[in-house]
Amino acid sequence: MIYADNAATTKMSSAALSVMTELMKDTWGNPSSLYGFGQKAKEALEGARETVAAAIGADVREIIFTSGGSEADNQAIRTAAYTGASNGKKHIISSAFEHHAVLHTLKRLEEEGFEVTLLDVHKDGLVRPEELEAAIRDDTCLVTIMYANNEIGTIQPIKEIGEICRKHKIIFHTDAVQAIGHIPVNVINDNIDMLSASAHKFHGPKGVGFLYAKKGIKLRNLIEGGAQERGRRAGTENVPGICAMAKALEEAVSKIDGYGKKLSAGRDRLISGLKEVPHSAVNGDEKRRLPGNVNFCFEGIEGESLLLLLDDKGIQASSGSACTSGSLDPSHVLLAIGRVHDVAHGSLRLSIGEDISDEDIEYIIKSVRETVEYLRSFSPIWRDLEAGVKEHIL
Amino acid sequence: MIYADNAATTKMSSAALSVMTELMKDTWGNPSSLYGFGQKAKEALEGARETVAAAIGADVREIIFTSGGSEADNQAIRTAAYTGASNGKKHIISSAFEHHAVLHTLKRLEEEGFEVTLLDVHKDGLVRPEELEAAIRDDTCLVTIMYANNEIGTIQPIKEIGEICRKHKIIFHTDAVQAIGHIPVNVINDNIDMLSASAHKFHGPKGVGFLYAKKGIKLRNLIEGGAQERGRRAGTENVPGICAMAKALEEAVSKIDGYGKKLSAGRDRLISGLKEVPHSAVNGDEKRRLPGNVNFCFEGIEGESLLLLLDDKGIQASSGSACTSGSLDPSHVLLAIGRVHDVAHGSLRLSIGEDISDEDIEYIIKSVRETVEYLRSFSPIWRDLEAGVKEHIL
Repeated sequence: MIYADNAATTKMSSAALSVMTELMKDTWGNPSSLYGFGQKAKEALEGARETVAAAIGADVREIIFTSGGSEADNQAIRTAAYTGASNGKKHIISSAFEHHAVLHTLKRLEEEGFEVTLLDVHKDGLVRPEELEAAIRDDTCLVTIMYANNEIGTIQPIKEIGEICRKHKIIFHTDAVQAIGHIPVNVINDNIDMLSASAHKFHGPKGVGFLYAKKGIKLRNLIEGGAQERGRRAGTENVPGICAMAKALEEAVSKIDGYGKKLSAGRDRLISGLKEVPHSAVNGDEKRRLPGNVNFCFEGIEGESLLLLLDDKGIQASSGSACTSGSLDPSHVLLAIGRVHDVAHGSLRLSIGEDISDEDIEYIIKSVRETVEYLRSFSPIWRDLEAGVKEHIL
Repeated sequence: MIYADNAATTKMSSAALSVMTELMKDTWGNPSSLYGFGQKAKEALEGARETVAAAIGADVREIIFTSGGSEADNQAIRTAAYTGASNGKKHIISSAFEHHAVLHTLKRLEEEGFEVTLLDVHKDGLVRPEELEAAIRDDTCLVTIMYANNEIGTIQPIKEIGEICRKHKIIFHTDAVQAIGHIPVNVINDNIDMLSASAHKFHGPKGVGFLYAKKGIKLRNLIEGGAQERGRRAGTENVPGICAMAKALEEAVSKIDGYGKKLSAGRDRLISGLKEVPHSAVNGDEKRRLPGNVNFCFEGIEGESLLLLLDDKGIQASSGSACTSGSLDPSHVLLAIGRVHDVAHGSLRLSIGEDISDEDIEYIIKSVRETVEYLRSFSPIWRDLEAGVKEHIL
C-alpha cells in the first residue's frame, strides 16, 4: 500500500514502538509510588519531559502530558479564556479554519458569553498579521491560530503573530498538531505562549500528546483529581506512551532537515503532475505549506468516490480531515478559503511520509488522473459543465 | 519482587500486551478514515466496545472510551451537574472518601454554585443507604458514590444505593475504577446510570479507560472537537490501547470467580497475621472489601518509612493512594473513617494480585512485623506511648 494520509495518523516508528513495548513490560510501576520500581517509572517520565521540552525550546516545567492534541487545545483555550474573564477580558481571536478541537471549544465559550472573532484565511489559506492586529481589542484575552492547517497544510506566519500578541500582552496559543516533528518549531523564536501537540501525528503512539504553557501561565485543569503533572492534569501518567512519544519526537525533529527536502520535492512533483488534470486547482498556497501536504479540488466529482477507488488501487488518501469524515458537510477549511460547496466536495488530500518513493509518486499521479477521468465519465455535474449548462469555476 | 500495590497500578497481562503491540504494528490506521485500512481499525474499535459493554451488562451505545478513570469521573459528574442545573437542580450527594477525581470536581462545582452533601462513611468505611435517602432533596441531581474504595477497599451497597436513586429519579454515578475486573459488576443489576473505569487497574494499559452512560443520558463533552465517539469525546481514538483494555477486561472478568477466592484467602491470612502486631488495626470492614485489599494502621510509626524499608525487602506496597503520595497530609480516606492524624500517618495498604503465593504472604507478614518493630524501636512517639506520656488509641 502507498500510505498518503499521514496528516490523519502515522505509523509508529520502530524505535518508538520498542520504547513503548519495553516500558509496558518492564517499567509499568505507578510513577507516584515511593518504592524504587515506581520511581524508575517516574525517572522515565521526567526523562521524556526533558526530551519533549528540548525539542521545542521549552523548559521542562512548561510541559504537561495529555491524552492528545484535542485535550491540549481544550485545556489551553479554557485556561486563557477564564484567566481573561477574571480580568474582565472576554474576547478571543482565532481563524476561520482551525481544527474543530479549537472551533468547537470556542463555540462553547461563546455560549458562556465570550466573543470570538474569526480571521479570514483568504484564498491562499494564510492569516494576515495586519488583520490580526486590527482585530485586537482592549478586552482580547487570547489569540489561537494553528501552526499549520490539517487539511491544506498552509503554514501561518506564527512568529509575526506571536510578536503582535506579545506587543499587546495577549496570550498566544497555537495548535501545532500538524507542524511538530514536520517543520522546525521553537516556542521562544516563535513567541508562543501555549502550544498543543499529538504524538500519533509524528510517528508516536495514539492517545498521547502534550501541552506547552509558558512559565507564568497558571493552567486550569480540564481533568480534576490526583496531583499528577504538578496538579495540572489528573490521572495516572501513561508512562510507556509518553516515553514513546518523546522518542518519536526526538527522531522526527532530527530528520526534519533531510526528509523535509525529500518530501517537499515529492509534494511539488505531485502538485505539478495533478495540475495537468483539467479543471483542477491546488487548495492553499503552493509553497508555504507542510512539506508532505498536497490538497486539490477536481470539478465534477465526489471526493469520497475518488478515495474509495484510489483505495482499490492501493493508495490511502483523504478528503478533508479524518476527524470530520462521515459528515456530509463539505470541509469548513475549503469553504473558508472560498471554495463553493460543489467544488469543495471534490477534494483530495495527499499527505506523504518519508517512506514514499519517486515511483510511488508517479503511480499516485497516474492513478488520480485516471480515476478523476473515470468518475467524470458518468458524473451528471460534469456532463452539465461540459455541455455549458453550468459554468466551470476551476 | 513481591508486588503488593495492584490498587496503584497493575502489570499488563501478556494477552493485553500482545493485542496492543500487534495493533500498533499492523492496525494503526485512523478509524475515521474511509479506506479499508482505516476501517479495519474501526472494526477493532467497535469489537472492543462490544467486549467492554458485555463485561458490565451494558449496550455498545452506552460505552465511550476515555483516557482513564479520572477523565470519565470528570465527564460523568459535569454531565449530571449541568443537566441538573438546567432543570434548577444543583444539589449533589457523594461520600467523604471518594477519589480526588470526584472530590476535586465537586469542589469546582461548589465554586460554580452547586451544593454538595458528603455522606459519612463510618468507621467501617461503608455508606448507609438510609442516610443517603435522608440526604436526598427536591433539587438533588446526582448521587456519586464509588463502588469500592481505592485505599481501604470497602465495597459499598451499590445495588441499594442505585435503587434509592432510581426511586427518586436521580442520576447515580459510580467510580468503579477499583471494582471493575476484580468483583462482579453489572450496571443493570446494580441500578447504575453512569460508571467510570480505568484499564491499568485490571491489567490493561495506562492512558485508557471508559465511561458507561445509560441510554437517555446526553453526555456533555469534556473534550470538544472531532466527531469521534459519536460526538461525545473528541480526539483520534487510541485503538491499540482500547483493544488491549477490552482484552484485559475480558480476561479479568473471566478470572473473578477463581482468583477472587484465592485473593480473599490471602487477604484474610494477611489480616490475621498482621493483627498480631500490637497496637494495630485494620482499616475498614474486614470482609466487605475487595478480595486483594488489606489496609492497616500501626501506632507510633510513619507509613512512608515502613514502605521504604519494605521496598528494601523486595515488597512493594503503599501508604494511602498513589495519586496523593508526595503530599504530607494524611489520607483523607483514613480521616473519613475516624482515624486521627497520628494514626493515619502510620498506615499500610497491601493490594495483592493473582500471582501471589502462600510463601509470599507469609514473607509479607514476617517483614511487616519486623519492620514495624524496628521502626518503633527508635520512634519518639512510640516511646511516649509506651511510657504512658501519650495514650494508646489502637
